[in-house]
Amino acid sequence: MRRLATRTVLFHQAAAQSLGLFPTDLKSADLLNELGPLTAGELSEKTGLSSGAVTALIDRLEKAGYAKREKDPKDKRRVIIVPLTAGKSQVKQLFLSLSASTKKLTNEYKPEELDLIIQFISQTADIMDQELQLLKSKS
Amino acid sequence: MRRLATRTVLFHQAAAQSLGLFPTDLKSADLLNELGPLTAGELSEKTGLSSGAVTALIDRLEKAGYAKREKDPKDKRRVIIVPLTAGKSQVKQLFLSLSASTKKLTNEYKPEELDLIIQFISQTADIMDQELQLLKSKS
Repeated sequence: MRRLATRTVLFHQAAAQSLGLFPTDLKSADLLNELGPLTAGELSEKTGLSSGAVTALIDRLEKAGYAKREKDPKDKRRVIIVPLTAGKSQVKQLFLSLSASTKKLTNEYKPEELDLIIQFISQTADIMDQELQLLKSKS
Repeated sequence: MRRLATRTVLFHQAAAQSLGLFPTDLKSADLLNELGPLTAGELSEKTGLSSGAVTALIDRLEKAGYAKREKDPKDKRRVIIVPLTAGKSQVKQLFLSLSASTKKLTNEYKPEELDLIIQFISQTADIMDQELQLLKSKS
Protein backbone atom coordinates (compact mmCIF):
# COMPACT_ATOMS: atom_id res chain seq x y z
CA MET A 1 0.00 0.00 0.00
CA ARG A 2 2.84 2.32 0.90
CA ARG A 3 4.67 1.55 -2.37
CA LEU A 4 1.47 2.31 -4.29
CA ALA A 5 0.86 5.52 -2.31
CA THR A 6 4.39 6.75 -3.11
CA ARG A 7 3.94 6.06 -6.83
CA THR A 8 0.48 7.62 -6.82
CA VAL A 9 1.76 10.84 -5.28
CA LEU A 10 4.77 10.99 -7.63
CA PHE A 11 2.73 10.19 -10.74
CA HIS A 12 0.16 12.87 -9.95
CA GLN A 13 2.93 15.34 -9.19
CA ALA A 14 4.43 14.72 -12.65
CA ALA A 15 1.01 14.75 -14.35
CA ALA A 16 -0.02 18.00 -12.68
CA GLN A 17 3.34 19.56 -13.49
CA SER A 18 2.94 18.75 -17.17
CA LEU A 19 -0.41 20.61 -17.08
CA GLY A 20 1.08 23.59 -15.22
CA LEU A 21 -0.88 22.73 -12.07
CA PHE A 22 -0.12 21.58 -8.52
CA PRO A 23 -1.04 17.95 -7.66
CA THR A 24 -3.75 19.19 -5.28
CA ASP A 25 -5.23 21.31 -8.10
CA LEU A 26 -5.57 18.30 -10.35
CA LYS A 27 -7.13 16.18 -7.61
CA SER A 28 -9.45 19.00 -6.54
CA ALA A 29 -10.68 19.26 -10.13
CA ASP A 30 -11.19 15.50 -9.99
CA LEU A 31 -13.10 15.85 -6.73
CA LEU A 32 -15.35 18.50 -8.32
CA ASN A 33 -16.00 16.17 -11.23
CA GLU A 34 -16.78 13.35 -8.80
CA LEU A 35 -18.99 15.28 -6.37
CA GLY A 36 -20.38 18.03 -8.62
CA PRO A 37 -20.31 21.78 -7.86
CA LEU A 38 -19.16 22.65 -4.33
CA THR A 39 -18.79 25.90 -2.41
CA ALA A 40 -15.26 27.00 -1.47
CA GLY A 41 -16.03 26.01 2.12
CA GLU A 42 -17.08 22.51 1.09
CA LEU A 43 -14.00 22.16 -1.10
CA SER A 44 -11.83 23.21 1.85
CA GLU A 45 -13.50 20.57 4.01
CA LYS A 46 -13.14 17.80 1.42
CA THR A 47 -9.53 18.58 0.50
CA GLY A 48 -8.30 19.40 4.00
CA LEU A 49 -6.84 22.67 2.65
CA SER A 50 -7.15 25.99 4.47
CA SER A 51 -9.66 28.49 3.08
CA GLY A 52 -6.80 30.73 1.91
CA ALA A 53 -5.21 27.82 0.06
CA VAL A 54 -8.58 26.94 -1.49
CA THR A 55 -9.06 30.51 -2.78
CA ALA A 56 -5.66 30.37 -4.50
CA LEU A 57 -6.49 26.90 -5.82
CA ILE A 58 -9.81 28.04 -7.33
CA ASP A 59 -8.00 30.99 -8.95
CA ARG A 60 -5.56 28.55 -10.59
CA LEU A 61 -8.34 26.18 -11.68
CA GLU A 62 -10.30 29.07 -13.19
CA LYS A 63 -7.23 30.39 -14.98
CA ALA A 64 -6.44 26.94 -16.38
CA GLY A 65 -10.08 26.46 -17.45
CA TYR A 66 -10.84 23.49 -15.20
CA ALA A 67 -13.52 25.17 -13.10
CA LYS A 68 -15.40 28.40 -12.72
CA ARG A 69 -17.10 30.35 -9.93
CA GLU A 70 -20.85 30.75 -10.37
CA LYS A 71 -23.78 31.98 -8.30
CA ASP A 72 -25.70 29.02 -6.94
CA PRO A 73 -28.97 28.97 -8.95
CA LYS A 74 -30.71 27.66 -5.79
CA ASP A 75 -29.33 30.40 -3.54
CA LYS A 76 -27.93 33.52 -5.22
CA ARG A 77 -25.94 34.51 -2.12
CA ARG A 78 -23.84 31.36 -2.41
CA VAL A 79 -20.96 31.01 -4.84
CA ILE A 80 -20.29 27.51 -6.13
CA ILE A 81 -17.29 26.12 -7.97
CA VAL A 82 -18.45 24.36 -11.12
CA PRO A 83 -16.18 21.79 -12.81
CA LEU A 84 -15.66 22.47 -16.52
CA THR A 85 -15.49 19.77 -19.11
CA ALA A 86 -13.13 22.01 -21.09
CA GLY A 87 -9.53 21.01 -20.55
CA LYS A 88 -10.71 17.57 -19.52
CA SER A 89 -9.55 15.98 -22.77
CA GLN A 90 -6.02 17.11 -21.95
CA VAL A 91 -6.30 15.42 -18.56
CA LYS A 92 -7.85 12.32 -20.10
CA GLN A 93 -4.98 12.15 -22.59
CA LEU A 94 -2.55 12.17 -19.69
CA PHE A 95 -4.27 9.26 -17.95
CA LEU A 96 -4.97 7.30 -21.15
CA SER A 97 -1.90 5.10 -20.96
CA LEU A 98 -2.42 4.51 -17.23
CA SER A 99 -6.06 3.55 -17.86
CA ALA A 100 -5.06 1.16 -20.64
CA SER A 101 -2.40 -0.54 -18.49
CA THR A 102 -4.79 -0.84 -15.55
CA LYS A 103 -7.51 -2.26 -17.80
CA LYS A 104 -5.06 -4.83 -19.16
CA LEU A 105 -4.18 -5.82 -15.60
CA THR A 106 -7.81 -6.17 -14.51
CA ASN A 107 -8.49 -8.42 -17.52
CA GLU A 108 -6.16 -10.97 -15.91
CA TYR A 109 -8.49 -11.31 -12.93
CA LYS A 110 -11.79 -13.18 -12.59
CA PRO A 111 -14.96 -11.10 -11.98
CA GLU A 112 -15.30 -12.39 -8.40
CA GLU A 113 -11.65 -11.55 -7.72
CA LEU A 114 -12.20 -8.04 -9.04
CA ASP A 115 -15.29 -7.65 -6.83
CA LEU A 116 -13.12 -8.42 -3.83
CA ILE A 117 -10.35 -6.07 -4.94
CA ILE A 118 -12.80 -3.23 -5.69
CA GLN A 119 -14.43 -3.70 -2.28
CA PHE A 120 -11.04 -3.48 -0.54
CA ILE A 121 -9.94 -0.43 -2.53
CA SER A 122 -13.26 1.31 -1.89
CA GLN A 123 -12.96 0.62 1.86
CA THR A 124 -9.41 1.95 1.80
CA ALA A 125 -10.63 5.14 0.08
CA ASP A 126 -13.23 5.54 2.87
CA ILE A 127 -10.48 5.15 5.48
CA MET A 128 -8.33 7.78 3.73
CA ASP A 129 -11.33 10.14 3.76
CA GLN A 130 -11.79 9.66 7.52
CA GLU A 131 -8.05 9.98 8.19
CA LEU A 132 -7.88 13.18 6.18
CA GLN A 133 -10.66 14.68 8.31
CA LEU A 134 -8.87 13.45 11.45
CA LEU A 135 -5.57 14.97 10.35
CA LYS A 136 -7.32 18.22 9.54
CA SER A 137 -9.09 18.36 12.92
CA LYS A 138 -5.70 18.01 14.69
CA SER A 139 -4.02 20.86 12.82
CA MET B 1 -8.88 3.37 -8.08
CA ARG B 2 -9.44 6.98 -8.99
CA ARG B 3 -11.30 7.67 -5.73
CA LEU B 4 -8.40 6.10 -3.81
CA ALA B 5 -5.81 8.07 -5.80
CA THR B 6 -7.61 11.35 -5.05
CA ARG B 7 -7.71 10.59 -1.31
CA THR B 8 -4.09 9.42 -1.32
CA VAL B 9 -2.90 12.66 -2.92
CA LEU B 10 -5.02 14.81 -0.59
CA PHE B 11 -4.02 12.88 2.54
CA HIS B 12 -0.32 13.16 1.73
CA GLN B 13 -0.75 16.84 0.94
CA ALA B 14 -2.25 17.41 4.40
CA ALA B 15 0.32 15.17 6.11
CA ALA B 16 3.25 16.88 4.39
CA GLN B 17 1.80 20.29 5.17
CA SER B 18 1.56 19.47 8.87
CA LEU B 19 5.31 18.62 8.76
CA GLY B 20 6.16 21.79 6.86
CA LEU B 21 7.04 19.81 3.73
CA PHE B 22 5.70 19.42 0.18
CA PRO B 23 3.96 16.09 -0.62
CA THR B 24 6.78 15.17 -3.01
CA ASP B 25 9.30 15.78 -0.21
CA LEU B 26 7.56 13.35 2.09
CA LYS B 27 7.28 10.71 -0.62
CA SER B 28 10.89 11.23 -1.70
CA ALA B 29 12.00 10.65 1.89
CA ASP B 30 9.86 7.51 1.79
CA LEU B 31 11.50 6.47 -1.46
CA LEU B 32 14.95 6.94 0.10
CA ASN B 33 13.89 4.80 3.05
CA GLU B 34 12.57 2.17 0.66
CA LEU B 35 15.51 2.07 -1.78
CA GLY B 36 18.38 3.22 0.46
CA PRO B 37 20.82 6.05 -0.35
CA LEU B 38 20.55 7.42 -3.89
CA THR B 39 22.43 10.06 -5.86
CA ALA B 40 20.55 13.22 -6.82
CA GLY B 41 20.45 11.91 -10.41
CA GLU B 42 18.89 8.63 -9.32
CA LEU B 43 16.37 10.47 -7.14
CA SER B 44 15.46 12.66 -10.12
CA GLU B 45 14.92 9.55 -12.24
CA LYS B 46 12.81 7.76 -9.61
CA THR B 47 10.64 10.76 -8.73
CA GLY B 48 10.25 12.14 -12.23
CA LEU B 49 11.38 15.57 -10.95
CA SER B 50 13.82 17.80 -12.82
CA SER B 51 17.36 18.01 -11.46
CA GLY B 52 16.73 21.60 -10.33
CA ALA B 53 13.60 20.52 -8.44
CA VAL B 54 15.55 17.63 -6.87
CA THR B 55 18.28 19.99 -5.63
CA ALA B 56 15.65 22.18 -3.93
CA LEU B 57 13.97 19.06 -2.56
CA ILE B 58 17.21 17.71 -1.04
CA ASP B 59 17.82 21.13 0.52
CA ARG B 60 14.40 20.99 2.19
CA LEU B 61 14.87 17.38 3.33
CA GLU B 62 18.28 18.25 4.82
CA LYS B 63 16.89 21.30 6.56
CA ALA B 64 14.00 19.29 8.00
CA GLY B 65 16.37 16.51 9.11
CA TYR B 66 14.94 13.76 6.89
CA ALA B 67 18.07 13.18 4.80
CA LYS B 68 21.62 14.33 4.38
CA ARG B 69 24.17 14.63 1.59
CA GLU B 70 27.23 12.40 2.06
CA LYS B 71 30.22 11.34 0.00
CA ASP B 72 29.67 7.82 -1.31
CA PRO B 73 32.08 5.63 0.72
CA LYS B 74 32.50 3.45 -2.41
CA ASP B 75 33.29 6.39 -4.70
CA LYS B 76 34.35 9.68 -3.07
CA ARG B 77 33.52 11.68 -6.20
CA ARG B 78 29.85 10.75 -5.89
CA VAL B 79 27.46 12.45 -3.47
CA ILE B 80 24.63 10.30 -2.14
CA ILE B 81 21.48 11.31 -0.31
CA VAL B 82 21.20 9.27 2.88
CA PRO B 83 17.78 8.91 4.57
CA LEU B 84 17.87 9.82 8.26
CA THR B 85 15.94 7.95 10.90
CA ALA B 86 15.73 11.23 12.83
CA GLY B 87 12.37 12.87 12.32
CA LYS B 88 10.94 9.52 11.33
CA SER B 89 9.01 9.17 14.59
CA GLN B 90 7.11 12.34 13.72
CA VAL B 91 6.21 10.85 10.36
CA LYS B 92 5.30 7.52 11.95
CA GLN B 93 3.03 9.35 14.41
CA LEU B 94 1.25 10.93 11.48
CA PHE B 95 0.59 7.61 9.79
CA LEU B 96 -0.19 5.71 13.02
CA SER B 97 -3.95 6.13 12.84
CA LEU B 98 -3.98 5.30 9.12
CA SER B 99 -1.92 2.16 9.79
CA ALA B 100 -4.25 1.08 12.59
CA SER B 101 -7.38 1.58 10.46
CA THR B 102 -5.82 -0.28 7.53
CA LYS B 103 -4.73 -3.14 9.81
CA LYS B 104 -8.27 -3.39 11.19
CA LEU B 105 -9.61 -3.58 7.64
CA THR B 106 -7.15 -6.28 6.56
CA ASN B 107 -8.17 -8.37 9.59
CA GLU B 108 -11.61 -8.72 8.01
CA TYR B 109 -10.12 -10.58 5.04
CA LYS B 110 -8.94 -14.18 4.72
CA PRO B 111 -5.20 -14.78 4.12
CA GLU B 112 -5.83 -16.00 0.55
CA GLU B 113 -7.98 -12.94 -0.17
CA LEU B 114 -5.20 -10.68 1.13
CA ASP B 115 -2.66 -12.50 -1.06
CA LEU B 116 -4.78 -11.65 -4.08
CA ILE B 117 -5.25 -8.02 -3.01
CA ILE B 118 -1.53 -7.57 -2.28
CA GLN B 119 -0.66 -9.04 -5.67
CA PHE B 120 -3.02 -6.62 -7.43
CA ILE B 121 -1.78 -3.60 -5.48
CA SER B 122 1.84 -4.54 -6.12
CA GLN B 123 1.15 -4.90 -9.87
CA THR B 124 -0.60 -1.53 -9.84
CA ALA B 125 2.44 0.05 -8.15
CA ASP B 126 4.64 -1.44 -10.92
CA ILE B 127 2.33 0.09 -13.55
CA MET B 128 2.50 3.50 -11.85
CA ASP B 129 6.30 3.24 -11.89
CA GLN B 130 6.31 2.53 -15.64
CA GLU B 131 3.73 5.26 -16.33
CA LEU B 132 5.77 7.79 -14.36
CA GLN B 133 8.82 7.01 -16.48
CA LEU B 134 6.68 7.25 -19.62
CA LEU B 135 5.23 10.60 -18.57
CA LYS B 136 8.72 11.85 -17.78
CA SER B 137 10.09 10.75 -21.14
CA LYS B 138 7.34 12.73 -22.92
CA SER B 139 7.98 16.01 -21.10
